[in-house]
Amino acid sequence: VGKVRFDISMSIDGFIAGPNQTLEEPLGEGGEQLHEWVVRLASWREQHGMSGGETNADDEVVRELQDATGAHIMGRRMFSSGAGPWEDDPKADGWWGEEPPFRGPVFILTHHPREPVTKQGGTTFTFVNEGIEAALEQAREAAGDKDVLVAGGADVIQQSLAAGLVDEFQLHVAPLLLGGGVRLFDNLPADRPSVELTRVVGSPAVTHLRYDVVK
Amino acid sequence: VGKVRFDISMSIDGFIAGPNQTLEEPLGEGGEQLHEWVVRLASWREQHGMSGGETNADDEVVRELQDATGAHIMGRRMFSSGAGPWEDDPKADGWWGEEPPFRGPVFILTHHPREPVTKQGGTTFTFVNEGIEAALEQAREAAGDKDVLVAGGADVIQQSLAAGLVDEFQLHVAPLLLGGGVRLFDNLPADRPSVELTRVVGSPAVTHLRYDVVK
Repeated sequence: VGKVRFDISMSIDGFIAGPNQTLEEPLGEGGEQLHEWVVRLASWREQHGMSGGETNADDEVVRELQDATGAHIMGRRMFSSGAGPWEDDPKADGWWGEEPPFRGPVFILTHHPREPVTKQGGTTFTFVNEGIEAALEQAREAAGDKDVLVAGGADVIQQSLAAGLVDEFQLHVAPLLLGGGVRLFDNLPADRPSVELTRVVGSPAVTHLRYDVVK
Repeated sequence: VGKVRFDISMSIDGFIAGPNQTLEEPLGEGGEQLHEWVVRLASWREQHGMSGGETNADDEVVRELQDATGAHIMGRRMFSSGAGPWEDDPKADGWWGEEPPFRGPVFILTHHPREPVTKQGGTTFTFVNEGIEAALEQAREAAGDKDVLVAGGADVIQQSLAAGLVDEFQLHVAPLLLGGGVRLFDNLPADRPSVELTRVVGSPAVTHLRYDVVK
């Protein structure tokens, strides 16, 4: 059976998005820089329907993650890019496009019931109204032997950690100080989890730190 | 001429001390765990007047730092362990002991004038009342060709970064979530510095990430 993990780019000062997020700039001021390392990789470009790109140690890390992932969980804001309830905004799920990069089942935590959506390239969006545990149960089932990736945002990752649901995580630490924005590790419970470092790899562009959560 | 640097142990969630710091527990709840990786090393033990200890990649990192450092700068609270003005508390500089581990000139940022103190083993404590730039000037002079280490606390490191005085820094990321306490990167200025990753080394106990500040 697969693991539950998160895998996310973080600045040195602990932010996964910069300050002043808007619909036009969903990653906040400077937040795009968090992902500069990944958008030039062959694995990432392939996932997004593009050819070419770099193949290196970072690319292997991304390809490994892609191969391991059987289902995604994400929050409503990550899905809709902060546009509010989809009913009111026709652009609200627009930025993932007609062929989203997930290429498998995606479970979205939301209070708004909505019918599942099937996109091109294998992505299905299923909307879960009963909270993180229910979403995880459905994602596990859908992932089979593969892993469930808690894709974000920070609040969903924090909920997963707090509920003791995360088996493993990997931080892609970008050489960057954002100075403000959305902190990855915030609102941790008093009985915060113990972790073990299991791998460090990287390049001048990014450091990949992988940890097991000790159960 | 030497560099100005800081070199500090930090939790995965960005803290250099845990919550609820007291005189008895100056590193806060759980904060001792930040330093578990270092206290067992031969280099650290030697610096603290003890024999034995491990020699490994982490030990080489610490020895390199010791060899490079010609002077230290620290804040009043790091010096006195939060005990308040020394005039009122005879134990206030007690915890560094009669033979402090700095073994060279230390410049302490404080609003309280005080005569310099010479300790055993080469440590001198000089008290600077004119702010971080003045302390740095004196420390540079004292360090000669070696580096000035901004030892802490977080507020002094933040001041140094904000004033554009830091050339290089190294984070010793301990596999640990503290959930609260003293954040290293806080109160950064809007024109926060750009950095470049220059080295990653480590062990299962800790990851050493070294960055240059781009001037």
